[in-house]
Parts: sequence; structure tokens; C-alpha cells
Amino acid sequence: MDKKADIGLIGLAVMGENLVLNMESKGFTVAVYNRTVPGIEEGVVERFVNGRGKGKNIIGCTEINDFVEHIKTPRKIMMMVRAGNAVDQLMEQLFPLLSPGDIIIDGGNSNYEDSNRRVIETEKRGFRFIGTGVSGGEFGALNGASIMPGGSQPAWNDVKPILQRIAAVAEDGTPCCDWVGPGGSGHFVKMIHNGIEYGDMQLISEAYFLLKHLKKMDNEAIATVFEHWNEGRLHSYLMEISAQVLRHRDKDGDYLIDKILDTAGQKGTGKWSVINAMELGMPLGLIASAVFERSLSSDKNLRVEAAKRLAKDRKIDTTTDLSLVDDIEQALYASKLVSYAQGFAVLQKASDNFSWNLDLASIARMWRAGCIIRSAFLNDISDAYQASEKPKHLLFAPKFAAETAQALKGWKGLVITALQAELPVPALSSALNYYLSLTTANLPANMIQALRDFFGAHTFERIDMPRGEFFHEDWTGKGGNTHSGSYNV
Amino acid sequence: MDKKADIGLIGLAVMGENLVLNMESKGFTVAVYNRTVPGIEEGVVERFVNGRGKGKNIIGCTEINDFVEHIKTPRKIMMMVRAGNAVDQLMEQLFPLLSPGDIIIDGGNSNYEDSNRRVIETEKRGFRFIGTGVSGGEFGALNGASIMPGGSQPAWNDVKPILQRIAAVAEDGTPCCDWVGPGGSGHFVKMIHNGIEYGDMQLISEAYFLLKHLKKMDNEAIATVFEHWNEGRLHSYLMEISAQVLRHRDKDGDYLIDKILDTAGQKGTGKWSVINAMELGMPLGLIASAVFERSLSSDKNLRVEAAKRLAKDRKIDTTTDLSLVDDIEQALYASKLVSYAQGFAVLQKASDNFSWNLDLASIARMWRAGCIIRSAFLNDISDAYQASEKPKHLLFAPKFAAETAQALKGWKGLVITALQAELPVPALSSALNYYLSLTTANLPANMIQALRDFFGAHTFERIDMPRGEFFHEDWTGKGGNTHSGSYNV
Repeated sequence: MDKKADIGLIGLAVMGENLVLNMESKGFTVAVYNRTVPGIEEGVVERFVNGRGKGKNIIGCTEINDFVEHIKTPRKIMMMVRAGNAVDQLMEQLFPLLSPGDIIIDGGNSNYEDSNRRVIETEKRGFRFIGTGVSGGEFGALNGASIMPGGSQPAWNDVKPILQRIAAVAEDGTPCCDWVGPGGSGHFVKMIHNGIEYGDMQLISEAYFLLKHLKKMDNEAIATVFEHWNEGRLHSYLMEISAQVLRHRDKDGDYLIDKILDTAGQKGTGKWSVINAMELGMPLGLIASAVFERSLSSDKNLRVEAAKRLAKDRKIDTTTDLSLVDDIEQALYASKLVSYAQGFAVLQKASDNFSWNLDLASIARMWRAGCIIRSAFLNDISDAYQASEKPKHLLFAPKFAAETAQALKGWKGLVITALQAELPVPALSSALNYYLSLTTANLPANMIQALRDFFGAHTFERIDMPRGEFFHEDWTGKGGNTHSGSYNV
Repeated sequence: MDKKADIGLIGLAVMGENLVLNMESKGFTVAVYNRTVPGIEEGVVERFVNGRGKGKNIIGCTEINDFVEHIKTPRKIMMMVRAGNAVDQLMEQLFPLLSPGDIIIDGGNSNYEDSNRRVIETEKRGFRFIGTGVSGGEFGALNGASIMPGGSQPAWNDVKPILQRIAAVAEDGTPCCDWVGPGGSGHFVKMIHNGIEYGDMQLISEAYFLLKHLKKMDNEAIATVFEHWNEGRLHSYLMEISAQVLRHRDKDGDYLIDKILDTAGQKGTGKWSVINAMELGMPLGLIASAVFERSLSSDKNLRVEAAKRLAKDRKIDTTTDLSLVDDIEQALYASKLVSYAQGFAVLQKASDNFSWNLDLASIARMWRAGCIIRSAFLNDISDAYQASEKPKHLLFAPKFAAETAQALKGWKGLVITALQAELPVPALSSALNYYLSLTTANLPANMIQALRDFFGAHTFERIDMPRGEFFHEDWTGKGGNTHSGSYNV
């Protein structure tokens, strides 16, 4: 055997391929392997080694044992395969081939609970496991991604030199990759990252929608607005590429955006964020609104029929209000703040529940470059969490408190104008309602508690008694004195 | 052994006790059993038999084998215990004591996937399993509940005479209990019922909040409005008891509602509804907003601090607009329609996915009496699903299409007025945004698809090409030609 690789990578789809080229460009020799499924996945390794990988320090292997043998020990084997059973199957194939101390790195979008389990199963066999989020799409994979590793802590020193080298670098020179925590915490953080990405994209799409319909702007004009915003506090990768998307021409010279069907797909991580927030009892309404809006968008036939049956006389009143564009910026910024505040609150809750000891400032820093949600304002979030008084809620950080207060008038005004014009703004509305609920000391939840106690003897707390004491009222004078047992609502 | 019972019931918490008394009052002899946990649950059976069950055809058993022996074969054993492991543990205890053909009925709020599994596990042993939703709280359990059984179809004929006798009866004389379908479908339907209940309660609490703060009405005035609404299309149990709650006095003569802390609890079924809707890719935004609002309400300290830090100068502008009360009614009714439409759409999707062949009209009929969400308008839903042209979406039913169109102006106006006054209306807003999205033939999801394709090569469909064909654009002129594989967003 001539030469050994510094790291091996399994799974040559878009992310895997580009990560390999990134590693190789940083001076690492990479062994690659891809499963062969006759008629479906054939010759993937050969095509890559003779294509984009030609003439590079890449060792193509078509057999998994050959692949494993071509990697220096302690081996670092990164899997970039579809999350789910495929990961477990691959690990079962790898286990008999590994040496003690070898490290399996799962860089796919695995469920964090699977990663929790895989850390234990791998360590039990004398190997080590890292579950890492990798964000940045194909460009980030090739040029520097945001990498969020968690799992077997002792493996961090072994993989750090490679992972930090292929990571994106923030403006201050810090690599966007640092140790997250134990178990599946790396994948949990990536999951919330992706949820936030869903929220950001939904918010941008609503801003686009309002500029288009309320202001009757064309694609070029909207792109110009987005570019302008991208120079301010909304500076972010997604804002930047949204402008590029708007200016992009189809082969026939028309704007491509106008040819794209409005049916958004999804592959799971947004949904998982919401499900896990629900499990933790945490409100993640903005991301939920983004997930549901994608679901609703995907049923195009239903909407077309609904528009015809239910809204055929709808006319949108356009507005000449010049401040509207500024209001959209205010609404977009404030809603984005709410979304990140909700997401970081879920991270904090998970950290408390699972004893992960997450460093929220460090997580914000890892997201500053390389990943899809990279933006200027992650610096501000990092600063907020590093302040001498760590904010109990992100919106309590002095800068954000001042900005939301200042944005409120325009934000409200914009949501009101949109609803008046019958234009849906689910994420902007959700964020506004969250902000108003958060800042309402007395919500009408006393009515909900009264009803639950009325029909189900669920008990309630009182404002004139200490917290933690629960009371049941005999509302009708006829109820029993049995308290709630199996009836859950 | 003197006498044998027609049915046995395990678990004498609030629902169990009242179901036993209900069965006994209909002429059935009931054997009862409750586990004994020293220091926690002791003497439960004795207290019940010598208390509310005194002098009745109730056989109290303190040993499970004695309990089983006291039931006529094929035995019907209903469990009213906490959902989760307790059910499995109890079933393991029962299995060795049963005879072939005996029927275990789980009347708790079990997860439908557990019920799917339990049907299989029970049938494998030669017994039968029914997972049934039971709704109605303690009053319904005693006087007639809405009962939604699913599972081992051949067991239906055996349990039907008892379950239909203890069920509530709708105004047309039909018992609110009918066979739902195979597997865990009974618990799935109950789960959605409870989710809808979350939505209804949140909507009522928002209406209460707006009448209180926008119109400065006192409890008696709000109760009068609710009673008035309860005579119209909003006629429902929850509306009726909301008025009673508002008029209810504490021991000291003050209104109790004003003493109840605004921290809403929850025990899981609302959350499960949303999680399962997400898994099915269906929008269930109104219920999600209700679940998240309960979560947010429960962090009272955070909100008090947020109100102080972020909204200390907030003043609510009250309004003398006389039509506002009508607008609230319009908004409440239309939002309730949206919530039920979302819920029934999830039921339809589950039915299609799991081949349950659910009868939506029958489900609506089962909810007309006995249960917490019972209301006049479930008759209209049942009628809609029985129409010669079954509506593709509940809001397409002619009556509901006309009503939402008519409500839209007031609904919009109310949400706008509330947001203008900085009063949170998460569920009313969510419903309005859903309605607007549903009726928008062209949503801005084309922007989301463009962005996903830009950074992740996720492909998109085009408006000028047939559905089902997916395209990838090289947006920057630099990307590879590899399509999306492991990168999920």
C-alpha cells in the first residue's frame, strides 16, 4: 500500500464531494468511498476521482475494507450519508474493520437523539463518535463551512486540526468550528440552526411578497432594496443571495424567480426543531409558522382552488406610503431577533435539561461564517451572551431591547397594512404576537386555567397565594372532590 | 363467588370513578381495581366502594387476579390509568390472567402509536384490544361522554352495548360513540379532538382579553356577551362554561377569574397533535399557536420582567367602536372554522396515510355531545362531509365558504385593532394568516425554493413545466452539477 490518508470520507453526494475537495486543498490526503447500488449508485467513486478529484491527493476506494485500510490510525472517518438507518447500517459495517480509538464522524443531519445513542454504542466498542452539524451548502462545504461537533470529548483533539482547517473563518480570524458538548449536542445545535434558517427564509419571502404586492416593485427594484438592507443590520448571506436570486435571468432572458413554482419542499430539520421545542415546552412559533407555511405552499392545487372559490374578488390595495419600505425593514429585523431569541432559548433549555453546558456565545460565533444563516448580527448575539450580566432572554440585552422598542411602531404598522391588504404574513405576525405576549405581564391564560379546572379538575394557581400551590374550585356546586388523574388536556 | 361483573375498570382517578358510576347507573355491574402504592395510593378501592359507590352494583377488588375472576367472559376490562408505561405494565399483569377473546380497553389518553403496537401485541396473544378516546371531563364521564373506540374490529360488537349506553346522546338521539377504525385510530381522533380543544380555549381566552382591555368590559358584561354568543352559531359547551367561569365568585365575594394566575398548564395531547401534524406535513398552526402560548404563559416571571424591561410605557387605547364586539364574534367564529378545518384535514391525511378509512362525518357526530368541544356547529361539519360532493377542504363547504367570506372584514379589523393596541392575539392571527395563505394562489414560496436551490442544490419546479419535474440552476456560474444528497434543509 503506497500512501495513507489523513481522513476518510464516505458518501459522495454534493456535501461529501465538496468537503473532500476542501480537505484536500488544505493539504490533507483523503480516502473516499461510496456505496454501490446496482442501477442506482454505480461508479460514483470512479467518476469523482477521475473528475473533480483528478490529480489530487484523493484515494478512491470501491470496497469499504480497502477504504478503512487506507486511513492512518487513529482513523478519522467522516460519513456524509442520508440521516437515519443508512448511518446505523454503515456503522455496523465499519465496526469490525476499526481499531481501538478510531473516530467515526457523522456529518449528516442526524437526529440528535440518534447521535446520543451512537456515542454510547460506539464508545462501548472502544471507538469514538462525533456527531457534527455541517452548514454552508455546497459552497460552504468547498470553501469553509460552519462545523458544530459534539460527542466523544476526548476525540476533539484528534479531529480539531482537520475540522477547524476546513471551517469557515470569521472576520476576526476565528474558525467557525468549536467543541459544542457531549452526546448529540452538536446535531441539536445544527437542528436549531436549520430551524432558524427556515424562519429567516420565510421572513425574507414575506418581505419580497410585500414589496411586490403592496409597493408593486419589480424584481430589480426589490433586489436593490435587499442590497441596501444587506449593507445595514440585516447584512447576511441569505439577504445577499436573495438579491442575486431576484436579478438572475433564465435562459430566455426572463427573471427566473417568476418561473419558479411556489411549492416549498422540506426535508425535516425545521420540523424537528419545532417538535423538540414542543417536547421541551418552549415556544418556537416563528419557525413553526415557517414550517407550516411550507406545508401549505406545497399543496398548490388546493390553494389555486381556494383562491378561485373563496377569494375570486380579492383586490390588493397598493400603497404609495413611502415609509413602508422602512417598516418592512423594521419588521424583518425585529422578527429575526424574535426568531433567534426563541431558538437560543430552546438551546438554553436543552442545555439545562440534558446537562450539556452549552456556551451560547460560542455557538453564535460558530454561525458567523460558512453557514447559511451567517450574518453580522450573530456578533451582537455573541456579545450579548458574553456580557457581564448574561441576559435571561436575548431580547433583554440592552442593544436588542432598544432596537425592538424602536422597531415596534413600524413592525405593527407593516403587519396591519399587510393584513388589511389580505396578504398573508404568517412569520411576521407570529413574531409580533410572541413579542406582545412576552411583554404582557398578565395574559388571558387565567381563563384557560379556569376552564381546565371547570371541566377536568386540573387545578390552578392563584395570584393571592404563593406559587406552587394548586387549587380546585367546585364551579357548579355539583362536582366531586376528586382531582385530575388520567384525564390529560 | 357470588356475582360476576359485566365489565371491569382499573384506575379510580376522576375519570375512572365517574365512568364506573355511569356504567352502574345504566344497569351494568362493574368490578373495580386500583393499584396500591404504599404511602401514595392506598385504600382507593375501599374508599370508593364505601363512598360514592356505596350500595351500588360495584365489586371492589384489591387484588388484580380477584378482579379478573369477577368479570364475565369474554371479559371487558377498561383501563383508566396514566398513559405511557403504566398501561404496558398493567397489560403485562393482565395477560396471564385472561382467557382467549377477552378485551382490554384503554380509555386513557394514550399515544396512538402505542395503541397501534398494543393492538398487535394483544391480538398476538389471542386477546383483543381497543384504544378509545373518552372526552367529557368528570361530568361527561358520569353523565355521558364522547367515546371514540378503535382497534380490534371484531371486539366492537361485544363492547358496543356498554360503550354506547354510557356515551352522551346528541339531540337527534344518536349516541356519541361509534367505531372509528383499526389500530390506534381511536386515540388519534381523540388527540386531534384535544388539540382542537386547545385551540378553542385559546380563542375564547383571546376574545375575553380583547373585551376586557379594548372595550374595558367587566366580568359580568363579558359573561353577558358570551351568553349572547352562546345562543348563536358559537353555541358550545366551552362558551357556556366560560360565561359561568366569569360570573363565579370566590369565597370572599370577588370574582374568582381575577384571582387565577395566568399560567396555563398542559399535559401533552395538544403538543402531540401538532407533532403528528408536522410528521404528516400538514399545517396545524392555530393549535400550535395555542400550545406555544400556553408554554409562554407558564413562564410568568419572565413575562413580568419582560413587561417591566421592554414595555413599561405601554398604554392600551380603548375603543368605543360599537361594532367591535361583533367583530370579535366574527373573528372567533371564523378562526374556529379554520381550526376545525385544519384538524379535519389532519384526520383525512392520517386516514389516507395509514389506510384507516375514517368517516369524518361520523367523527363530527361523535363530538356533538358529551365532550369538551361539543357544539352546534359540529352538526354543520357532519352535514358538510355528508354532502353529495364531499368538500376537498372544510372551508369549501358552501355554508362555511359563505360565512368566512362574510366574516373576513370584521376578522381582519379585529386583529388589526388588537395589534394596534399591542394586545397579543396569537390564535386569531394565526387563523387569519392561514386563511389568507390558503386563498393565495401564488405565495412567495418561489423565493424559498430559489434560495434552497441556490445554497443547497435542492432543485425547484417551474410554472412553465409539468408538475413533478425538478430543475437545478447554476446561480453563480461557479457551482458544481451535483444535486442534493445528504444535505437536508
